[in-house]
Amino acid sequence: MTWYIDRGPDSDFIISSRIRLARNVRGYRFPNRMSPEEARQFVKTAEDAFMQANRGMSSRYTVVDLNELAPEERLSLAEKRLISEDLLKHSDSCGVVISRDEALSVMLGEEDHIRIQAMAPGFDLDKAYQEASRAAAVFEERLPVAYDEQYGFLTACPTNTGTGLRASVMIHLPALTELGQIRALIENLQKLGFTVRGNYGENSQATGYLYQISNQITLGLSETDLIRDLQQTVRQVMGLESQARQRLYGANQAKTEDRIYRALGTLSYARLISSEEALRLLSDLRLGVETGVLPQLKPEEVNRLTISIGPGTIQKAAGEPLDTTSRDRLRARLIRETLENAAAGPAAAD
Amino acid sequence: MTWYIDRGPDSDFIISSRIRLARNVRGYRFPNRMSPEEARQFVKTAEDAFMQANRGMSSRYTVVDLNELAPEERLSLAEKRLISEDLLKHSDSCGVVISRDEALSVMLGEEDHIRIQAMAPGFDLDKAYQEASRAAAVFEERLPVAYDEQYGFLTACPTNTGTGLRASVMIHLPALTELGQIRALIENLQKLGFTVRGNYGENSQATGYLYQISNQITLGLSETDLIRDLQQTVRQVMGLESQARQRLYGANQAKTEDRIYRALGTLSYARLISSEEALRLLSDLRLGVETGVLPQLKPEEVNRLTISIGPGTIQKAAGEPLDTTSRDRLRARLIRETLENAAAGPAAAD
Repeated sequence: MTWYIDRGPDSDFIISSRIRLARNVRGYRFPNRMSPEEARQFVKTAEDAFMQANRGMSSRYTVVDLNELAPEERLSLAEKRLISEDLLKHSDSCGVVISRDEALSVMLGEEDHIRIQAMAPGFDLDKAYQEASRAAAVFEERLPVAYDEQYGFLTACPTNTGTGLRASVMIHLPALTELGQIRALIENLQKLGFTVRGNYGENSQATGYLYQISNQITLGLSETDLIRDLQQTVRQVMGLESQARQRLYGANQAKTEDRIYRALGTLSYARLISSEEALRLLSDLRLGVETGVLPQLKPEEVNRLTISIGPGTIQKAAGEPLDTTSRDRLRARLIRETLENAAAGPAAAD
Repeated sequence: MTWYIDRGPDSDFIISSRIRLARNVRGYRFPNRMSPEEARQFVKTAEDAFMQANRGMSSRYTVVDLNELAPEERLSLAEKRLISEDLLKHSDSCGVVISRDEALSVMLGEEDHIRIQAMAPGFDLDKAYQEASRAAAVFEERLPVAYDEQYGFLTACPTNTGTGLRASVMIHLPALTELGQIRALIENLQKLGFTVRGNYGENSQATGYLYQISNQITLGLSETDLIRDLQQTVRQVMGLESQARQRLYGANQAKTEDRIYRALGTLSYARLISSEEALRLLSDLRLGVETGVLPQLKPEEVNRLTISIGPGTIQKAAGEPLDTTSRDRLRARLIRETLENAAAGPAAAD
């Protein structure tokens, strides 16, 4: 069972929380200076250190050899944010360890020697931090991790030095976006030392009104302080979004319901759908869940769809490369089936 | 039971067939020259002549006093094409008789003294002509109808003189429209003596890809010849549309299915819908029926929706005047309920 089938706290605003920890190991050059040979040797050493830490590791984690994966399987890992786009380009000299529930992944030999990231559903940075720290402790116990008394953990890029920690949440901000308040919000958050990105990283637009808010500062504060700062800021953003929703949707209830139901109608009936359109409509569906218009639908079901409709994940589901039309057809079918099951009643596990 | 709940011949192209007969009565000036008093007296005389023709008339026909109807009820009659927009403006001095199944209506004191129109589902001008002739015969037997050996039936406007007959069909031409061939077709038909109009008369665009094709000529040919000419022409247009559908939808089957199912999704889920959008989407639904993509849906159900979602008919269903949002809400509900019933299975009458 993957992590995103669970509902987390504040799931009417927050899709997921993520903690990333960067660690480097003494005795090795930073990955961008390593020879391919040295990189492969490091990856092997780090994988073994982690996987052999105790007998339970291999039942919880898998070493993934990117070179053995089909292109669509690699792309699917990136779409689920288990690995970075950057890692895809250097798959020869990098290593990946992923937990069976896909909540935790470790990239070896990416920008830093070790990048651990842990995900939790909803607004739950503490849980993600616990998971990431536990994995970091495994490395720290078994490898000479580079730590400086004054600077903290040393990293390839100075902006990560210190805690090496990046905490982020994926937040749904349809009302602030539609009211045109998002740009000012982003600028304010930047002044306070936070970064805001659209869904799926730096270069893309905020498809589906999803934004990632993360700390920019890693140095000079403890890990728990950094997380607490982000939590406080995110709570404020949730308050603003809540007010904006009241203002925008409260005043146009009929229109909002119509929009939500139309999204449900299109997603339940379309025979071809692009991932962009699907994300846009899933945002409306999410709004339906958040506002109580669609009580039969659970936020975790929308999350699962949001995460599983990327081109790579769709092709992985098909087990073969597909052209755009075939992808759009399979995506439409998967969405239809998920929504039919959702409409059929609550899952047995409830 | 209204006429449009039946399926007629060639209902994959033709929604309905209509025959209009114009008659005038000796001893009265044409309506536009009548005093209000004279008009009222004529209407009374003609109504009585018709309704008292035999004992069965009052069980089949109703005299409608427009002045007693609420504005939305009057509008509904015009939307169902039982009366003309023109009649609405002169409701004081006009009379209306309507059959209980709404297939036949008689306007008294409109442009001509007597205008009879009969509707039939699908491509069935003969049936409509039989009905209209039967009603005309009732008037001709009991009133001195103006008939000239050389010119035939005399009418207020010379373009109607002769047979006083206008035959028309409402035809669905999505493929010819989308391929951009409709303008040339209309010009050709005009040269051959036919008139082509968009849905709902002269001034409106062809909402929902629906066109009305009718004869322009009324003089110099027999009534059956006029009807036969129109039938032949309509068969040719059906052939062209059939080829165009093959070309357009056969080559893009996946896209066409997607479009049809999306229309079904939106119509099944929307909470607010304007009549324009509904007509557009009903056209796609009709395409789904015509192409076999939606076998569970019957053409007569689409027809019934097309006829019953005008602003007046919606308000009549509500029993009170409604603002635009309330109309859009009720329209969306009526469409949803109809489609739910259609999806639930074939009607008991089948």
